[in-house]
Amino acid sequence: MPPRFDKDRPLAALIVPDLLELLEQHPESIGPQTEEMHPADLADLAEALPEEYVRAFLNALPRERAAAVLEYLDEELRTQVFEELTTREAASLMAEMTPDERADALEELDEETADEILSALEPAEKAETERLLQYDPYTAGGLMTTEFVAVDENLTVEQALRAVRAMARAGRREAMYTIYTVDTSTRLRGVLSLRELLAAPEGTRMSELAWSDVVSVAPDTLQEEVSRVTSNYDLVALPVVDREKRLLGVVTVDDVIDVIQEEGTEDAQKFGGMEALEEPYMQIGLWQNLRKRGGWLSILAVAQMFTASVMAHYEDDLGRVLLLSQFIPLVMSSGGNSGSQATSLIIRAMALGEVRLSDWWRVVLREVPAGLILGLLLGAIALVRIVVWDAFGLYDYGPYSTTIAFTVGLTLVGIVMVGSITGSMLPFLLKRLGFDPASASAPLVATLVDVSAITLYFGLAYSLLSGKLL
Amino acid sequence: MPPRFDKDRPLAALIVPDLLELLEQHPESIGPQTEEMHPADLADLAEALPEEYVRAFLNALPRERAAAVLEYLDEELRTQVFEELTTREAASLMAEMTPDERADALEELDEETADEILSALEPAEKAETERLLQYDPYTAGGLMTTEFVAVDENLTVEQALRAVRAMARAGRREAMYTIYTVDTSTRLRGVLSLRELLAAPEGTRMSELAWSDVVSVAPDTLQEEVSRVTSNYDLVALPVVDREKRLLGVVTVDDVIDVIQEEGTEDAQKFGGMEALEEPYMQIGLWQNLRKRGGWLSILAVAQMFTASVMAHYEDDLGRVLLLSQFIPLVMSSGGNSGSQATSLIIRAMALGEVRLSDWWRVVLREVPAGLILGLLLGAIALVRIVVWDAFGLYDYGPYSTTIAFTVGLTLVGIVMVGSITGSMLPFLLKRLGFDPASASAPLVATLVDVSAITLYFGLAYSLLSGKLL
Repeated sequence: MPPRFDKDRPLAALIVPDLLELLEQHPESIGPQTEEMHPADLADLAEALPEEYVRAFLNALPRERAAAVLEYLDEELRTQVFEELTTREAASLMAEMTPDERADALEELDEETADEILSALEPAEKAETERLLQYDPYTAGGLMTTEFVAVDENLTVEQALRAVRAMARAGRREAMYTIYTVDTSTRLRGVLSLRELLAAPEGTRMSELAWSDVVSVAPDTLQEEVSRVTSNYDLVALPVVDREKRLLGVVTVDDVIDVIQEEGTEDAQKFGGMEALEEPYMQIGLWQNLRKRGGWLSILAVAQMFTASVMAHYEDDLGRVLLLSQFIPLVMSSGGNSGSQATSLIIRAMALGEVRLSDWWRVVLREVPAGLILGLLLGAIALVRIVVWDAFGLYDYGPYSTTIAFTVGLTLVGIVMVGSITGSMLPFLLKRLGFDPASASAPLVATLVDVSAITLYFGLAYSLLSGKLL
Repeated sequence: MPPRFDKDRPLAALIVPDLLELLEQHPESIGPQTEEMHPADLADLAEALPEEYVRAFLNALPRERAAAVLEYLDEELRTQVFEELTTREAASLMAEMTPDERADALEELDEETADEILSALEPAEKAETERLLQYDPYTAGGLMTTEFVAVDENLTVEQALRAVRAMARAGRREAMYTIYTVDTSTRLRGVLSLRELLAAPEGTRMSELAWSDVVSVAPDTLQEEVSRVTSNYDLVALPVVDREKRLLGVVTVDDVIDVIQEEGTEDAQKFGGMEALEEPYMQIGLWQNLRKRGGWLSILAVAQMFTASVMAHYEDDLGRVLLLSQFIPLVMSSGGNSGSQATSLIIRAMALGEVRLSDWWRVVLREVPAGLILGLLLGAIALVRIVVWDAFGLYDYGPYSTTIAFTVGLTLVGIVMVGSITGSMLPFLLKRLGFDPASASAPLVATLVDVSAITLYFGLAYSLLSGKLL
């Protein structure tokens, strides 16, 4: 079994047939044979197996390996596995998982199953897990693990190193790269890396060695903020402290990466004009797919019907100058496109913390000139198009072709400005009102701008063409 | 100076006035006073200072602190600082930076300045930096550092630990959490965490202790793939090896987080219908802003002009049944909206590696029923709207109001399907043709679907209303 990462030929596809054979005939050899494989690869393997074999596969692994695999397993499959196991089996696997993953796994189960498993855990593990379960999963408290290394700040380097080695031998697996120093009330006092501890001259006190400027967050800090802080300070672990600065837990960087990717996915889907999915696209069912998309699609369609009333209002004018209809799609979509650009810029800048609510007027100062110049550009293109078509006889725009060209051109100047300003301000407005600024989707901006586009177009046509064609 | 993270009152705003006074009067006290501050906070401070003070501020810090601050400094400001320094000063600061950051900083400078600084480095540092500079910055080679810890696999735990401590004392700062074992030709053989080394029983050989299944990448692996592998295996460091599996360097997780955020920003901006910006939105000038947005906006406007020709084609029909114009915006935007949803789903799933090129038909199998049902939903809403408006006399749709309602409704069924399929397949098509699938923006999909929307609408109107109104 060559356990190498190969993006074109997934490992799982190569091994599954062999594995099924082993499961049938020599399940006892699976543990030794997969000993050197990364649990993430074993999880991929488990996901590629026919469902009825997953439990047998996990049972064939040593318990702590099976627990590690469960940490990487797709959530839905993991929940299914735990529901199939006896409470005793489930609890014994859970006991081997890291505390934060254990809490996450329990959170996904139905309450009854979760309570049964929880009760079957050792008292200390049970208490620790219950403590973690009380935090909102989308906060620092929900992300943190309680497997961290804290030592008394009065220890010497050698004493601290002995303590760290003892903890490492006792099986602490997470958040071991960073060592926190605490006072006698477990208040967080300092931080240093394991590297700095190893490099320190013997006899130094931890309190001298550690950095006293410790970046930390409260347990109710939202996960977006957790990821911003971690990334800003290039941390591998972020300590979570209570009001008295007592160290409660540590958020590790692998969980932060998951958060960043989740948030990116949610924002992308919202910006596409739908509610964020709870699972990967290929795993959701038709019903969830419809539910997450149908809502916004219907709202936007209903909002868009307002344009029908506006169009009806201008119907007589349109009847007199039918060729105005040709450019309705162009002016509408240009407003929407410029709005979509501005919105994507602002939402992303907000997500990364580059733009705050109070920066709205700075953004206006940027978007007004940008919108004006982009509008002039598009207006010029449209003007040239109409004049050229008319000159070469591709379409006869009649005696007032120049006026029509100017109507379309000026509408574009105006609507690109409206689009840029609406698109850039909508995220601010939503944030100010307490909504997620990422809900300012490309379709929403386009729909908002559409009515302006039609009104502006026919309004300009009316003033420029009245007495001529209207 | 309370060096605490506070998102509402940025640290820099509190300290800048004091710092300016110190810089004028007691620059020598700045080093000791800021000793405990995180370099990221010092970089924020430097960015908040008037530009002419930045150099003096960095000069007031001990050299290795100044180098650490430079690693966190905004790229533009950093380039400016290095250009203002003498070659000697610049080289002495660069020497203190981590090798990968040093290469990054040199890459941003103009070639002449970079060459001068490079020549002023110590021969070993110069050679190491030149080696890193030869890799494309958007690949594993461009991201990796050469400050990693590798030990001979034949050492015992105690020997290895002594070697690691010596390296830590010699000032290696990066990638110290993971220890790689190599054979006599520096070929990568195994990996273990510093924790595992500390926990190991004395006398064990490293070759027994290390995991032989080492996830690694080649130097030309693209950064997207680097971030996928790191996140998939929850790594804090990813080794980079050549064809002979010799260890060249290590990509650390903080750089991976930067990559993930950059890629997320690029994808979001592209999906918004523009080219990705090279810098944060608030830092770009008007010209870059226009250039990145104007191109796509013009292309889309030109493409959209095709709808003008299609509309011209149906002008006579429209003249006969003017009220058809009312629903042009609705059918156009509904097609665009459903397309935008489908595109955002697929682009994101591709970015996370959930969907491969060969999965296109699986996506079709999901999008056809989803599009059909969503289309039926919107069609029903539109049908009800027209019938209700007509029944309550809000608008008189004439004797064929039901037929018109069905025309609009059926168009919506069709166009939502067209939108869902176009939107979901466009990223596959672009990827297949070698383009970035993220270029399938919401505006592009909407523009592509617009012509279909108009054609479908007037085509259906013609067949349903011919002999009646047309």
